[in-house]
Amino acid sequence: MDNEQAKDGGLTERHNARMARKKEVVDKKIAAATRNAGVLVITCGNGKGKSSSAFGMVARALGHGMKVGIVQFIKGAIPTGEEQFFRRFPDEVSFHVMGEGYTWETQDRTRDVEKAQAAWQRAQALLSDPAIGMVILDELNIALKYKYLDVQQVIADLQARPAMQHVVITGRGAPPELIEVADTVTEMQPVKHAFAAGIAAQQGVEW
Amino acid sequence: MDNEQAKDGGLTERHNARMARKKEVVDKKIAAATRNAGVLVITCGNGKGKSSSAFGMVARALGHGMKVGIVQFIKGAIPTGEEQFFRRFPDEVSFHVMGEGYTWETQDRTRDVEKAQAAWQRAQALLSDPAIGMVILDELNIALKYKYLDVQQVIADLQARPAMQHVVITGRGAPPELIEVADTVTEMQPVKHAFAAGIAAQQGVEW
Repeated sequence: MDNEQAKDGGLTERHNARMARKKEVVDKKIAAATRNAGVLVITCGNGKGKSSSAFGMVARALGHGMKVGIVQFIKGAIPTGEEQFFRRFPDEVSFHVMGEGYTWETQDRTRDVEKAQAAWQRAQALLSDPAIGMVILDELNIALKYKYLDVQQVIADLQARPAMQHVVITGRGAPPELIEVADTVTEMQPVKHAFAAGIAAQQGVEW
Repeated sequence: MDNEQAKDGGLTERHNARMARKKEVVDKKIAAATRNAGVLVITCGNGKGKSSSAFGMVARALGHGMKVGIVQFIKGAIPTGEEQFFRRFPDEVSFHVMGEGYTWETQDRTRDVEKAQAAWQRAQALLSDPAIGMVILDELNIALKYKYLDVQQVIADLQARPAMQHVVITGRGAPPELIEVADTVTEMQPVKHAFAAGIAAQQGVEW
């Protein structure tokens, strides 16, 4: 038994052996995943983190020199931090706020349908532009859930996009047909939320 | 029955009535959540979106004129898009990459512990600076899971931070003691991942 083992009861040695086995497994998986392609990512569920995850990917894409297009389908009633920030880069980010608030705020289905369809036209322009490396369709799932848009039309347009273009779709209530055609899907599950403890939505965190 | 109803079988009317009820419920909850406070957010689980959600909150915070501090505990082996992007704003973002790769890559526990402790010292400096509105502790959960850091020390430092400072902690394996003291916790659950379909980690999406 060397000094290191004497100090930590073999923890270091066991850890190192476990990590060597883990490295083998991870390396094998990485070796198998070699294809490059534009991926369709969906973030759904009731937990916090769906839109913020999309905006984190915007930052990543910009760091790699890509151009990004963003369409917000539902939000639009208040200016958000993400809008204020990404509008600083008009040559790199094309930011379209096409909503007027959540559906329970507007209470006008006819108007919501019109707004969603106008937003989808913006999305179609981005999805047919090979210069755009990533397209964010924020809260599109909600527009689909309420059938403001036809899911088959949306899927057809997504599948006709440039081969290396990434798309991130966010919002509760993603329809199963959309999940079926997506590459990466995460469900954000709420474990707890500050809201329940009486804390108001905080700048920077929620908007 | 008016024209609108004749057209859609009453869908618009039912939708509007449902949204009116929903608005009442949401408004009541908003009225109850009025306290302003720095929130402690944790993103955990095995799904994609934990770190990207944190970086989306960085964008939001910057949009609201806040200063942000970022410490990456594990990542550091390859330059990421988020690092390249947020380093553009040295006056607003203080970015510290303190890791050398995932633990199964380094395979050296003693060194991992030293790196994690050096990273925590950086975190402590940010957590005691009231000029920093948001602190991101990326992959801290992994450093805690492997006991590179003492969770009680980490909690004590978090709780002693400025009252309005937000903290976002990411990574798999968040310890229960940390979840207990957090305000908002989301578990990212993988529904599917492009990796499994043979697609390599894509720039802008995964890093």
